[in-house]
Amino acid sequence: MEKVLAENGVQEIKLLAAINDEHEGVIVELSEPMSKEVLALMLKASIAQWRKQGKRGIWIKVPIEMANLIEVVVKEGFWYHHAEPKYLMLVSWIQESTHTIPANASHRVGIGAFVMNQNREVLVVQEKNGIFQKMGVWKFPTGVVDEGEDICEAAIREVKEETNIDTEFVEILAFRQSHKALFGKSDISFLCLLQPVSFDIQKQELEIEAAQWMPLDEYFSQPFVQKNELWKCSFDICLTKIDKSYSGFSPVSIASNLSNEKSYFYFNNRDLKWQ
Amino acid sequence: MEKVLAENGVQEIKLLAAINDEHEGVIVELSEPMSKEVLALMLKASIAQWRKQGKRGIWIKVPIEMANLIEVVVKEGFWYHHAEPKYLMLVSWIQESTHTIPANASHRVGIGAFVMNQNREVLVVQEKNGIFQKMGVWKFPTGVVDEGEDICEAAIREVKEETNIDTEFVEILAFRQSHKALFGKSDISFLCLLQPVSFDIQKQELEIEAAQWMPLDEYFSQPFVQKNELWKCSFDICLTKIDKSYSGFSPVSIASNLSNEKSYFYFNNRDLKWQ
Repeated sequence: MEKVLAENGVQEIKLLAAINDEHEGVIVELSEPMSKEVLALMLKASIAQWRKQGKRGIWIKVPIEMANLIEVVVKEGFWYHHAEPKYLMLVSWIQESTHTIPANASHRVGIGAFVMNQNREVLVVQEKNGIFQKMGVWKFPTGVVDEGEDICEAAIREVKEETNIDTEFVEILAFRQSHKALFGKSDISFLCLLQPVSFDIQKQELEIEAAQWMPLDEYFSQPFVQKNELWKCSFDICLTKIDKSYSGFSPVSIASNLSNEKSYFYFNNRDLKWQ
Repeated sequence: MEKVLAENGVQEIKLLAAINDEHEGVIVELSEPMSKEVLALMLKASIAQWRKQGKRGIWIKVPIEMANLIEVVVKEGFWYHHAEPKYLMLVSWIQESTHTIPANASHRVGIGAFVMNQNREVLVVQEKNGIFQKMGVWKFPTGVVDEGEDICEAAIREVKEETNIDTEFVEILAFRQSHKALFGKSDISFLCLLQPVSFDIQKQELEIEAAQWMPLDEYFSQPFVQKNELWKCSFDICLTKIDKSYSGFSPVSIASNLSNEKSYFYFNNRDLKWQ
């Protein structure tokens, strides 16, 4: 650890170990247990030093085992940036200028899966909990896209989990963005077309009350669907896709030379064939 | 506050005020300052009571002013769920069953804006910081979609902020999902087509080094673009859109009878005209 002269010029105080980031800021990860008093002294001395060096955003990551130290960091003017199960990230801006700290993750992402067999029957489920259960609505399988998971993989996984049907991903037909969803976050839900490659339904026990292949007409005639403009439009898109001509967005794996990693780029590849 | 007999049958301990949620759980918002010792007693007694009642997920919201109380909650087996600048939300599952606590927001969402004038010039910027600055790349205006903000509104706002050009939103041409972005979150970036309605550029001071209308050929001939498969594909989509025929997804404001609020549904409304 670095040491500097304290303001009285006599006592030496250790500084916190920090890594520079790419935006003239520093990142501190607390890992060695210490008392609140020691952290308070080190943090004050470190901030003074960083300020002299022209540093701007200061990030401090506190593991959950050191939850007792959070109040010390807060007292020095830090606020919460984000938290994951095992740590809390705090941040502060130590210059006079307006801060340019990037926002925390803002969206949850979900999928709804349209899966039809050769008899023009659609794969539908009834849920055990929540608002749809009370109304007895038969609905497309839906679910949440996990952090780090591709949308197309999530759709295949959710259909498999809820009904045990194996599918191949075809394309994204549409998506909806809504706000003030769970925990006040925004939400993007992708309507996906998948092709079944197995047909024997075995419903999941935990969350699914029932699952079946249902004739398209019967699905569409449900009062709930009839009254819901969004669901009617979604179904209209599905029908247009299977009976007429509708281009959604297909996933194409493409590299960016910034990351060197491939990721999925979704676009209308009927209108633009890419290699 | 409710009171119950403590396990020794003699002393009464107050229970924490809690609201039931829709999933057999409860939500506690700490608001009255209290000592760590008092909270520890109340929390233990409350958990015993909730367990008897069959409650499952327990949520505790701790405002930043009460950061000193976090360690007490952690000691009772709670973990961090999410944090916003002024509070930390902790959660615990007090039954034997597998927990079904929903994940925290998982994605950051961004836009890139393709804006072309009548002379086949594209609106491009050079940034002041970051990786593109070092390489001197001219790029489309880009930015982050805020929590609660519509994607189409964010695209218009970012173009206005960076270049002072007013635009109308046309459609989403494509999007990319990538992983392990900032803070380990996933990222979805939408490539948007916008129509300019003003043409005098005035660049933003804070983040933009330069901005201009650049001939399409000149943009495309930049070495960085030539080497980047993702950027080449994006540009190819833009060219197909303006010179041939390409359908992206357009925003249509649609109500869902679950929320009673309208939100944007994005789909190919060349192939499906909706009302």
